[in-house]
Amino acid sequence: MSATQGINVAIIGVGLVGSSVIQQLTTVAGLSSKLHLVALQNSKKTLLSTPTSPLSLSGSADWKSLLTNSSTSALALPDLVVELQKITRESGRHTAVVDNTSDEKVAAFYPEFLAAGLSVVTPNKKAFSGPIELYNDILKYKSNDKAGSKGPLVYQESTVGAGLPIISTLVDLVNTGDEITKIEGVFSGTLSYIFNEFSTPKGGDKKFSDIVKFAKENGYTEPHPNDDLSGSDVARKLAILSRLVPELKDALPKGYLSVPTHSLTPAPLADVASGEEYVQRLPEFDGDYDSLNKEAFNNGSVLRYVGVIDVKNNEIKASLETYPASHPFASSLSGSDNIIAFHTKRYSARPLLVQGSGAGADVTAMGVVADLIKIAERRS
Amino acid sequence: MSATQGINVAIIGVGLVGSSVIQQLTTVAGLSSKLHLVALQNSKKTLLSTPTSPLSLSGSADWKSLLTNSSTSALALPDLVVELQKITRESGRHTAVVDNTSDEKVAAFYPEFLAAGLSVVTPNKKAFSGPIELYNDILKYKSNDKAGSKGPLVYQESTVGAGLPIISTLVDLVNTGDEITKIEGVFSGTLSYIFNEFSTPKGGDKKFSDIVKFAKENGYTEPHPNDDLSGSDVARKLAILSRLVPELKDALPKGYLSVPTHSLTPAPLADVASGEEYVQRLPEFDGDYDSLNKEAFNNGSVLRYVGVIDVKNNEIKASLETYPASHPFASSLSGSDNIIAFHTKRYSARPLLVQGSGAGADVTAMGVVADLIKIAERRS
Repeated sequence: MSATQGINVAIIGVGLVGSSVIQQLTTVAGLSSKLHLVALQNSKKTLLSTPTSPLSLSGSADWKSLLTNSSTSALALPDLVVELQKITRESGRHTAVVDNTSDEKVAAFYPEFLAAGLSVVTPNKKAFSGPIELYNDILKYKSNDKAGSKGPLVYQESTVGAGLPIISTLVDLVNTGDEITKIEGVFSGTLSYIFNEFSTPKGGDKKFSDIVKFAKENGYTEPHPNDDLSGSDVARKLAILSRLVPELKDALPKGYLSVPTHSLTPAPLADVASGEEYVQRLPEFDGDYDSLNKEAFNNGSVLRYVGVIDVKNNEIKASLETYPASHPFASSLSGSDNIIAFHTKRYSARPLLVQGSGAGADVTAMGVVADLIKIAERRS
Repeated sequence: MSATQGINVAIIGVGLVGSSVIQQLTTVAGLSSKLHLVALQNSKKTLLSTPTSPLSLSGSADWKSLLTNSSTSALALPDLVVELQKITRESGRHTAVVDNTSDEKVAAFYPEFLAAGLSVVTPNKKAFSGPIELYNDILKYKSNDKAGSKGPLVYQESTVGAGLPIISTLVDLVNTGDEITKIEGVFSGTLSYIFNEFSTPKGGDKKFSDIVKFAKENGYTEPHPNDDLSGSDVARKLAILSRLVPELKDALPKGYLSVPTHSLTPAPLADVASGEEYVQRLPEFDGDYDSLNKEAFNNGSVLRYVGVIDVKNNEIKASLETYPASHPFASSLSGSDNIIAFHTKRYSARPLLVQGSGAGADVTAMGVVADLIKIAERRS
């Protein structure tokens, strides 16, 4: 096996997801000969491979201390690019950058990574759901669809549904000429959990505020529950998917903020800065949530917080909707699962459905590593 | 754009699926510069591209008459290989063979295609579910997992679930180091339809034989319903999937015939040669089907014909099972949909589910064309 086989992988962000990516890269049989770890970076330090001292990370134990003890302070991104270009040249291998942060500044730097010939893989939603100008900049450099090109690639499976095959399925449908009529789904694991508990085909006997409180205490929500209940995470995922639907190209959201989004946070709590205070005051509004739930129940339905991309009617929205008890979103969903339905010309009688856990470090890392394998297949 | 971009595509079999593949290749925007049709072959004729007269198939209208009027009789497969190697050399492009037949002889020839450097894409289940020796021969030449290789690739998405992301999802799970504990699903569209009609959470008021009769008359079954009711199609899909699960490598079925398979055909009808007579005599056995259904109903369950690969217990089987009314196989399934559940270490609390139409020319062709695009991405 020649030294030039496979690709190099540079990892920015070594929190939960980043650690799980490193874990998979260093322990899964066969991966280390395809995906060569050449750089790790967190907010404090950078650890770089050199020809005389290649990173040798066997197992998941030692990289943390190597990074902590590195003599190199965290490089500014332009300086990291210079180092990665040098590593690319010296190794004779293509290099991919993995952004495991949720940092807007790293996301804004993707065009520069790509301009330098570096591929990008990420679960970070910011670049694909943020300003359309940044997205268009990325498209300029991304050569995924250019036959015969050896340019940099962009893979983003984990930006929606973590390891679930959502982006790849949409890309395959589009690339083979299917027409997307509607994409509809429960995209937030947190809101899936909350409504699966709150609104069931048999009604619901729990208070909305109690469910949110339990979810927060058990780490199912962000530290401030409004970050989930505002619906902005769902809006981001809708912006990401809508940009992959060619029929929408003249009607794309300028960013996730322009996706009509129904916030579940009561107006009087919108400015409460503390997550604790938010949860304390939420019971004041249980009556409102209850009456919505009762109305749905009386119509034989349940409440679900969904994202909808209705291509035919040119409507994109994140909102609380009702579904009859027999609908898969009502009957088949449980826990904090995501479920996404692709309605297309080919899948018109019944949609193509993908369901499963759409959050968590291991499944998110799986999406990242599967993307890296695809880049290695195309660029080595 | 250089003339060497993209790959060549040679198509064997131009029936319903083959025609739909050609339709997609010739009409979907952007595909003709990546996937160059260089050969069509049916049982009678072969149509070949030459440097002075490249195949120019715009739209789906003209290729049928071009093939019918071709002066070249259908080439023997070794002669087709010689021609394709010549086309590969002259075009400077990699070439993929698409087998749209369900022919065992074509399937048995895959090792020779691969040995000649030609990639293989197919919805034909025969090679992947037949004798393990043929399968191992294919593995020898297939270079999908060899980093840096420019060798031939094998893609088989449409062999299970047509265009649904089943094979690719299983491959991603395995490649990123997840451990498959169980794969369970309704793999036959025909049997899905029959049991969704026969056995519902509310019981069932239709006769089994009437449903089969209706299904046959409307083309939902093969001409002889035993070809569906025998379960052999499900057994083939189980053989295919089990061979992709590394944990099973010492316990693989030697072929689909060694997968324990529960036939739904009553023993006295097993040798009835005519599909018509089969359907005529099936009502004699309605009592048997009814009592199974009633028993399930009395337990709050429904009947579903499923395939199971239980990795933990080393058990592979195609059989009639009962599922509680709240199970996705009972509550969420309708029409002739497939539903496949991947239980893994990462997706342990709840499985990763994929559901949708798993048969039909357009969705099968979609799987084939998506596979061809992936080969073009890797070999051009």
